[in-house]
Parts: sequence; structure tokens; C-alpha cells
Amino acid sequence: MLPFTRVSVIGLGLIGSSVARAVRAAMPTVRLTGHDASPEVRAAAVGLKLCDDVADSAGAAVIDADLVILCVPVGQIGAVAAELAADLPDGVVVTDVGSCKGSVSRALAEALPGVAVVPAHPVAGTERSGPEAGFATLFRGRWCILTPTSASPPWAVERVSAFWRELGAQVECMDPDHHDRVLAVTSHLPHLIAYTIVGTASDLEEVTRSEVIKYSAGGFRDFTRIAASDPVMWRDVFLSNREAVLDMLGRFSEDLSALSRAIRWGDGDALEELFTRTRAVRRSVVEQGQDDDGQDFGRSHP
Amino acid sequence: MLPFTRVSVIGLGLIGSSVARAVRAAMPTVRLTGHDASPEVRAAAVGLKLCDDVADSAGAAVIDADLVILCVPVGQIGAVAAELAADLPDGVVVTDVGSCKGSVSRALAEALPGVAVVPAHPVAGTERSGPEAGFATLFRGRWCILTPTSASPPWAVERVSAFWRELGAQVECMDPDHHDRVLAVTSHLPHLIAYTIVGTASDLEEVTRSEVIKYSAGGFRDFTRIAASDPVMWRDVFLSNREAVLDMLGRFSEDLSALSRAIRWGDGDALEELFTRTRAVRRSVVEQGQDDDGQDFGRSHP
Repeated sequence: MLPFTRVSVIGLGLIGSSVARAVRAAMPTVRLTGHDASPEVRAAAVGLKLCDDVADSAGAAVIDADLVILCVPVGQIGAVAAELAADLPDGVVVTDVGSCKGSVSRALAEALPGVAVVPAHPVAGTERSGPEAGFATLFRGRWCILTPTSASPPWAVERVSAFWRELGAQVECMDPDHHDRVLAVTSHLPHLIAYTIVGTASDLEEVTRSEVIKYSAGGFRDFTRIAASDPVMWRDVFLSNREAVLDMLGRFSEDLSALSRAIRWGDGDALEELFTRTRAVRRSVVEQGQDDDGQDFGRSHP
Repeated sequence: MLPFTRVSVIGLGLIGSSVARAVRAAMPTVRLTGHDASPEVRAAAVGLKLCDDVADSAGAAVIDADLVILCVPVGQIGAVAAELAADLPDGVVVTDVGSCKGSVSRALAEALPGVAVVPAHPVAGTERSGPEAGFATLFRGRWCILTPTSASPPWAVERVSAFWRELGAQVECMDPDHHDRVLAVTSHLPHLIAYTIVGTASDLEEVTRSEVIKYSAGGFRDFTRIAASDPVMWRDVFLSNREAVLDMLGRFSEDLSALSRAIRWGDGDALEELFTRTRAVRRSVVEQGQDDDGQDFGRSHP
């Protein structure tokens, strides 16, 4: 028994196209309909055969769906939901993949009164964007967090959970505000810091851009990968999860000041103690299957 | 013609053991002698057959060398050089692999008056430590920066350059102070930030350690890799390159404050402009061969 049989994916970028590919791989009998606001992306989706059908409007894409997944930047979710609201069939479940859940829950509740809504966030992605970048195994072994509200019907929550498990994800339910604080530290703050340091390095006068790139293997290159993530998606994330991000940033800045002080005063013991403690966190990440065991991310050293 | 025929590696951790393996692979007729202050590491080096001979003291390791490479934490380079100074044969060249060059140049000049010294820094490494972690291809395609002083004989600079090219590296000469400012931004600051954020995330009360690890695929896991780097090596780097690190940290903090302000006031255009600009830096890093072209560092998604 499949949790859904007629799935519509709205937004066919990295995540939406990965959902479509993963559905094809895991549930080949599901009828897949897609839509993207961009005519170029729609044409690419047709060329890639991502879906059985690519519709020209969001409304046309959902008229006979039993699951609608909104895979657009979080700042657009409310508007896109409002645009397709009138075309939603009875009994449909609407979900999303947005990285912030408080603002998205409120936007969906307002745009879709009376509809079975189950906000969700698969914690997975890469630095690439667009329909070509997606792949079917993106969600495998990753966590998908559901943030049902009091208005989310339990049967819909159960079916959205089953859907993500079919795609290879592990599922957990969480309060939307707690989600936003957890992700502020495990995802939003890391991106903010990576964007900042890449900007700082680009703006130096005495160290040239060319030197920054040549000697990036000393650590900097890791940050450039994260700082290559989709600009519009991340703009929306920071604006939508403003308070939690600013709070985590404040804590980070305090800790950075303390470390800066330890360096200035030559407190080697404090540095070594922190650097030993952080090493254990890496071990846990690998042990719990959230990163490859290979040295240096398994980068090739041919 | 080999640049050197009797090479001594002092310090057999990740970098020293990689140098030994790379010499074996590229110049199999070179006689390799090794030493490490730790008896356990010496025993491991014997077991791994890293060198033709593993000596019990630094002095015994260098008595008939024509190249001595110091692969110890930068805070120990002066003391180790002083320890083996009396045993250095005539005509030997002494070099190192330390991540800071101003302090190292001064320490080597003081410990080894009259000796041909060519400070060097191969910009390569991984998060692992110890003799088991090394591998022969670590330096391939990476840059090795030489920072000769006015006392470094040109013939010695030429031969150390040739040595690193044999190991697959590209070589560039630079003023030691400029090196320290370049590396402060491409290597030291990224490590400092990674250590800090992993510490910040570990210390939260409302978000558990277990949640931080489970949802680390949102970006945080990349920072945990860097923050797993050798604690003693990095303690020494920050203490030895204090001024340049604190200066770069100051610039980074200013930029972070500006971004924080843009988030607080909802200035989406400023965010999107920065995030678009940083994307181009990643492209250059990949184009110039300083990182793999694969999506997500080429991580496996089986």
C-alpha cells in the first residue's frame, strides 16, 4: 500500500527534482506531476523526464493530486499555496520542504484553511541548484522533520511520514519553533558564517583573490562549497528564521570573542581544551551515519 | 638527478608520514630516516615500514642526511632544531612544513646559525593525525610555499623546490610575513571559526547534543571535520600567528555584524548580493584544481 498515488511537486530545483527522482525510484507506479514558475526549468524538467506531466500553472498541476509538495524558497510558500488553493481536490494533503517551519506553518495555515497540511523539512541538500542537480538518493539516511500543527490530521501525518520513509529518510516530529532553533544552529548559522568568511576573504586588499583561491586547500575551500548554495533560498531562510538565527549568532560571537581573547593572552590550555572537545563531536557525526567515514570527506587524491 | 639522496623526517604524524610515503613513491632510491619523540609513534612507523631506519633520537636521525624536514608542531620547531643542531653534517639543508613562517624562520635562524635553512609550508592536510593517517598523494596538485630568508643559499632553495615538485606539489616563494597573512585567511581563520561553532553548538542547553548530531547534514557536519584537526598543532598555529589571526578575525567579525544587521532589518537585497558573489569564489576554487568538481565534495550517496 503506497501512502500516495498521485504526487505533485511544485518547484523543480535541487530538492523538488530530487523528490521527483526519488519517488520514481521508490514508487514507480505513482503518477508524478510537476510545475515550476520558470519556463526554462519546466522545459528542462520535460527534457529530463522528471515527471509524467509538467503543468504550465501550479493550479493545473494539483487538480487530481493526493499529495502536493511545495519545493519553493520559504519566502514564496504562502503565495504559491494561495495561488493553487482553489484547485486543490478534496482529501489532498499539502506538505513542503522548507528549512524554516514557524513562518511556513503560519503561511500555509493562512493560505489553505481547512486543508490537511503537514509541514516538513528533509535535512539534506548540496551546494548545487536547479533541476539537473537533483538525484534520487539525496534523502537516504538523512532525517526528515515533520512539524504538524494542531490542525494537521493524524492520518495525514502518518501518510507523509510513510512517504518520506519510502524515499529512504528517517522521520521525526517536532514543534515548529524547536525545529527552527535546532536548524538555526545545525544549518542556518553554518551557512551564514561560510557566506561571511568567503566575503571577508574576497574583500581583502593585501591578499589577492588569486592567493585566496590558490591556497584554499588549507581549510577555506570547505567554506566555499557551503557559500555556493542557492542565494534566493538562503536569503529567505535568514529572513524567515530571523530571531533564532540572530540568537545563535550572538552566542557564536561571544564564544569567538572568548577564543580571540585566549589567543591574544597566549592561553594555550584553553585552546587545546576546546580543540580536543570538538574532535569528539566529529566522531559522533560519523558514528551516527550523518557523514562519510572517509578521511577528508573521501575526496579523491589520485 | 635527485635533489636529495638521504632524507631525514623528524616527526612522523600525518604530514611527516605522508612526506615519507611520497618520497618512497616518487624517489625510491632515496635513503629515508625517521624519528618521532613518541616511542609509540616510532614503533608504529617501524610497523608501517615508513622509513629505511627509525632512529631513537633526533640527532641520530640526521647525522648523514642531506635534507632534514622538521614535521613537528610549530611551537616545538625551535627546540627540536636546537636538539639536533650539533649532529647536522656539513652541506645539509634543513626545512620544515609548519603552517606559520615568521615565527618559524626566526626560531630556525636562532637554533641553526650558519646552516642552510629553507622554511616551507605545503598547504595540504586532512582532519586525521598520526602515522597511520598519512598517504603518498597528499601533496599532489597542492601548493608548497617556500619562505627563504636572506640567509637561505639560492642552491638550497632550488633543491627544496625541486624536492617538492618531485612529490607532486606546485612551488611558490613568498615573504614569511605575507605568507602568514595569506594563511591566516585561507587556513587559520577557517579553523578558528569551525572550532568555535562546534563548541557553541555543543554548549547549548535547549538544543541537545544528540539533535545537533542528528541534523548535522544541514551544513554543520562540514565544520565538524575541520574541528577534528590536531589540537596541539592548531594551538601552536594560533599562538604563533597571533597578530595576523586576530586581525583577520576582526575583519570577519565586522562583516558578520554587518550581515547580522541586514538580517535584523530585513535587507534581503544585501543578503542576496553577498550570496551571489560568494558563489563565484567556489567556481574559481574548482576551476583552479584546488577542490574536486563533484557535488557535495563527491560524498557517496549510495
